[in-house]
Amino acid sequence: MSLNAARGFASDNSATIHPDVLAAIARVNVGHTFGYGHDDYTLSVEARVASAFGEHASAFFVFNGTGANVVSLRAACRRFEAVICAETAHLNVDECGAPEVIAGVKLLTVTGVDGKLTPERVESRIARVGDEHAVQPHLVSISQCTELGTLYTVSEVRDLADVAHSHDLLLHVDGARLSNAAAALGVPLRDAAAGADVVSFGGTKNGLLGAEAIVLLNPALAQDFLYVRKQSMQLASKMRFLAAQFDALISDELWLRSARHANTMAARLADAVSDVPGVQITRPVQANAVFAILPSGVIESLQREYPFYVWDESAGEVRWMCSWDTTEEDVEGFATAVRDALATYAA
Amino acid sequence: MSLNAARGFASDNSATIHPDVLAAIARVNVGHTFGYGHDDYTLSVEARVASAFGEHASAFFVFNGTGANVVSLRAACRRFEAVICAETAHLNVDECGAPEVIAGVKLLTVTGVDGKLTPERVESRIARVGDEHAVQPHLVSISQCTELGTLYTVSEVRDLADVAHSHDLLLHVDGARLSNAAAALGVPLRDAAAGADVVSFGGTKNGLLGAEAIVLLNPALAQDFLYVRKQSMQLASKMRFLAAQFDALISDELWLRSARHANTMAARLADAVSDVPGVQITRPVQANAVFAILPSGVIESLQREYPFYVWDESAGEVRWMCSWDTTEEDVEGFATAVRDALATYAA
Amino acid sequence: MSLNAARGFASDNSATIHPDVLAAIARVNVGHTFGYGHDDYTLSVEARVASAFGEHASAFFVFNGTGANVVSLRAACRRFEAVICAETAHLNVDECGAPEVIAGVKLLTVTGVDGKLTPERVESRIARVGDEHAVQPHLVSISQCTELGTLYTVSEVRDLADVAHSHDLLLHVDGARLSNAAAALGVPLRDAAAGADVVSFGGTKNGLLGAEAIVLLNPALAQDFLYVRKQSMQLASKMRFLAAQFDALISDELWLRSARHANTMAARLADAVSDVPGVQITRPVQANAVFAILPSGVIESLQREYPFYVWDESAGEVRWMCSWDTTEEDVEGFATAVRDALATYAA
Amino acid sequence: MSLNAARGFASDNSATIHPDVLAAIARVNVGHTFGYGHDDYTLSVEARVASAFGEHASAFFVFNGTGANVVSLRAACRRFEAVICAETAHLNVDECGAPEVIAGVKLLTVTGVDGKLTPERVESRIARVGDEHAVQPHLVSISQCTELGTLYTVSEVRDLADVAHSHDLLLHVDGARLSNAAAALGVPLRDAAAGADVVSFGGTKNGLLGAEAIVLLNPALAQDFLYVRKQSMQLASKMRFLAAQFDALISDELWLRSARHANTMAARLADAVSDVPGVQITRPVQANAVFAILPSGVIESLQREYPFYVWDESAGEVRWMCSWDTTEEDVEGFATAVRDALATYAA
Repeated sequence: MSLNAARGFASDNSATIHPDVLAAIARVNVGHTFGYGHDDYTLSVEARVASAFGEHASAFFVFNGTGANVVSLRAACRRFEAVICAETAHLNVDECGAPEVIAGVKLLTVTGVDGKLTPERVESRIARVGDEHAVQPHLVSISQCTELGTLYTVSEVRDLADVAHSHDLLLHVDGARLSNAAAALGVPLRDAAAGADVVSFGGTKNGLLGAEAIVLLNPALAQDFLYVRKQSMQLASKMRFLAAQFDALISDELWLRSARHANTMAARLADAVSDVPGVQITRPVQANAVFAILPSGVIESLQREYPFYVWDESAGEVRWMCSWDTTEEDVEGFATAVRDALATYAA
Repeated sequence: MSLNAARGFASDNSATIHPDVLAAIARVNVGHTFGYGHDDYTLSVEARVASAFGEHASAFFVFNGTGANVVSLRAACRRFEAVICAETAHLNVDECGAPEVIAGVKLLTVTGVDGKLTPERVESRIARVGDEHAVQPHLVSISQCTELGTLYTVSEVRDLADVAHSHDLLLHVDGARLSNAAAALGVPLRDAAAGADVVSFGGTKNGLLGAEAIVLLNPALAQDFLYVRKQSMQLASKMRFLAAQFDALISDELWLRSARHANTMAARLADAVSDVPGVQITRPVQANAVFAILPSGVIESLQREYPFYVWDESAGEVRWMCSWDTTEEDVEGFATAVRDALATYAA
Repeated sequence: MSLNAARGFASDNSATIHPDVLAAIARVNVGHTFGYGHDDYTLSVEARVASAFGEHASAFFVFNGTGANVVSLRAACRRFEAVICAETAHLNVDECGAPEVIAGVKLLTVTGVDGKLTPERVESRIARVGDEHAVQPHLVSISQCTELGTLYTVSEVRDLADVAHSHDLLLHVDGARLSNAAAALGVPLRDAAAGADVVSFGGTKNGLLGAEAIVLLNPALAQDFLYVRKQSMQLASKMRFLAAQFDALISDELWLRSARHANTMAARLADAVSDVPGVQITRPVQANAVFAILPSGVIESLQREYPFYVWDESAGEVRWMCSWDTTEEDVEGFATAVRDALATYAA
Repeated sequence: MSLNAARGFASDNSATIHPDVLAAIARVNVGHTFGYGHDDYTLSVEARVASAFGEHASAFFVFNGTGANVVSLRAACRRFEAVICAETAHLNVDECGAPEVIAGVKLLTVTGVDGKLTPERVESRIARVGDEHAVQPHLVSISQCTELGTLYTVSEVRDLADVAHSHDLLLHVDGARLSNAAAALGVPLRDAAAGADVVSFGGTKNGLLGAEAIVLLNPALAQDFLYVRKQSMQLASKMRFLAAQFDALISDELWLRSARHANTMAARLADAVSDVPGVQITRPVQANAVFAILPSGVIESLQREYPFYVWDESAGEVRWMCSWDTTEEDVEGFATAVRDALATYAA
């Protein structure tokens, strides 16, 4: 077996499965059960996930983050309705057009600040309501954490929910890294998505094999949800094994421990390189990502040793993601490599 | 943990994960690797799966059977093109409209014989070619095994491929149970789908946690395939764990051993109940399914003990699926239950 | 100018524009007005058309029959919902897949009798309600007149509406030839579509240049209708000229006079050829179409003189459509040609 | 009959049908002919329209501008491909999401200068080619004239075609007002869209009742075009009456005379108000539109007398469109009204 297995900072998707998660899968790997989530175990895990968000919430498992986001939009919007999001949103730049083509919604983008929307900017896109020539804004989508590793405070999320609701719009939270946000904010999951109508609650980036939950806080969205998920090709037949992953994630606060660890590693990395001459940290380090500008001459050689991605080619900005399984040795080794590379470069 | 875990014959999706599969997942659960299949390990497993189908084949993993089928159609067809399939095809009756709504193709259905198409019936739907008011037939889709547990012989598949190709159409094989077909036919996988342009090669129903492969034998279909898979929400971020499942499946002929076992169990079950008065086997038992008509009075009480599905309410026809983990005890116990129930019923 | 202008019986779309319609267009061709239907004149014609169907009805103009049907379905159905219709429905066979691909609905077809649905057959397709794997029936669509020139009586339509409503489904009437139906039944337009929730009320086949009305009798469908029409590319900028066509059509009962004339011509044609040896009238002649089986040897030579279409190649069945501008001379000339051709053929 | 008929400057869609166009419709309103464009007359007019663009061009009529644009994109793009256009493009802001939802393409927008793209800005959006997570740029769409009344010179269009082609992209020209552009540039229609692969050639805004032509200069796009048009609900049954409108438009240079007149009226209007204190002309007046900023206090009172639209509420920018039937009296009357309103306002 050949994994191209240099440890690095490419993505929290590059990490392994947490052993508790594999153990949970193995634990339910006994006997027969009905598929498609129509088994008591899945129902019970769904209920536990939902209860982390509120008493009227419901939760449904899907395969991946694109699925969670696009199924959320499909369930919430009609085809003449539009979604307001940041230009940098995953929805806008990393779903290969699935929101438009599969969900059937147009995105109305806003230039964010470090990836974040503000009520004012959201309101600037709520325009031409009632004009048949224009798509009708129906949902605001924010990422928590953002794609730039930044956070909304609880009150910032709530303010966005309020502004959405005041215009009869819904709030969606792309929470592929919601655990990292809640851990960093020191609040329960529900508060990290305060006021949201629908949440993509991520698990894969936080140590699962591959599973995400769509949490519906607005009960109206739940009514026909099962058809939308199935038609969107996101209904697992052996659902118990998706449920098991979330069972592990929400047991013994695994979500919190794993996310906190990833956040801590990112902070430590930022700390370790922030004073290296030639390295400029470009975004507030609030969760598990560090963004930095490096001389282009050192990027490629560093990547050979520790894989990571260039975020913005023109600016020379790179992204370093930490995950639940990033170790202190990883961070120290990499910080040393950065320090050495820049020293060599300067010389 | 409460699984509603009575062993039964509801579906091959009700079964567990084969231990070799879990072991393979655990084996690659080390270190970091690039996501989305851009790692050497996934590439190597893809190549091995592809080589089971032909030297110009390519293989791509997706999450589930609906995904495999719909992504295959999306990759092969434009939106004014149509797919010829059996009325009983999974595509037609069990995908909640995804072929039409997500792939964007109309299905032209044919009444099959025990779920099977014939060249004549296919040709009866190749009509109005060049007429702008009508969808243009572009692809023939067959299920191997069919939804009714029956098989195409190798030459029957090849004849359908020939008739499709002679009209410039493509052949798709929905092989959610292709392993069962190949095992029953005693041929390699490639021969069970002889002449196909694209195959949904199933794994989930044959002991995987959840993974299917789309195998492209027509190289033209591969060109833009990656975009289609991604936009269709079927791109796994932690792809190595889908690859690992197929690694196990194609190692040491696990696919064959598991499928052969399931087929054997079905044959044994059919055998054990075929002479029970009041039980009428309704379809040739050629793979891992048994279809039978029972007096309606006994169905519900049997289901409470051994879960299974009613296939056709009006006819009183039921379906009993065997899987890789169906045991001889399961079969014997159930056959006894059937025998007893009917004896009681007759009394 | 070269129109390939042999008069014939190919289609009611082959006919000219009624002079009253051109006059109405010319009459409103003065001054400036707001586009897209936001002018008083269009609003007043919409109201008059709507009032022909009921006091809570609303009416909206679109360009063509495909548009009327597909926009109706888009407005009424979500993407996991299905439409029950006859196999022979225009929706199913002559829209190049637009219902599936553009409206996003699956069609559940029923074998009709002379193109007509019955409550029993409709109910046979209302199945698997609540099963997420299956599309959910939401609307029944009938054609009045049918594509085979037959009619539903008022009570047959009402019975279909009742059966639909009793299952919480809607009724759509494809009324591309609703005028011919109402004229033949001797009832007002509203009764020809009794109980419908949405009607495609045709104009083009009854002497207009090109305009159809979507009439919404179920007020819930009207709420967001304008967005659906616009996004479906069916919003005319110079709407007053579509309104003018309907103004003419509903003034002085032009719709009735034109339709009655077309129906009379069809009856006369059927009468004139029904006793010709070798001609077999195949469908009840109830509106403006005559279907007949002729020896294949005579079809092509007749078509050269009087254009018409072969309906069913294998059966040798042809279709002769009469229109508002079919003359008695047309009918007599053609009947003579048929008689002569068959006499020659028999000789 | 009550048209809300104050003459004004709201839109070139507010204008009447040119009498030559109505006469052409009446002229072909004789006899029977095959529908859907399968008549010699339509074919001959299509050929004449096509020949105005090049010898390998083909032309197809559709109902409206949205249809012309969206069918063009549907014919040219697959669903993972994207269209680069200006933020202000009609495609982006005035089609109610039809490009995304019906054509199935994502728009990659660029901030234009007075509505115009530049090669540099186009190239800035040709990014992430080969990255499956991102839509793949496939077509550049420009408006000629732009929505802001400005023009591309012939060489500017050609440069954009060159940059598109150098990256294997296509060029689409939204020519809803291509006649105005060609008239203003003093060049043939083909030069106003030099190098384009597909052109939406507008007629409705230039005196037709309602008809647009899609002109395909890239023969590869023509192959399956008829299916795309039909499925997109843009196939007219009585096509001869769309053809007649274009027959009139391209006969005796009606397109040129009408467009030149509209352009002249706009220039005259700009001239007449440019020195009025408080009026600021905001865009180069190059075709038939005048954009201006007025004190908000005078806009509403002016609109009551002469209808026109506010373009940008926040900036107080209004749009005045001239059309083929705008008279010198209209312009003088309105210029006087503007002058008077501002004098009153200043007082």
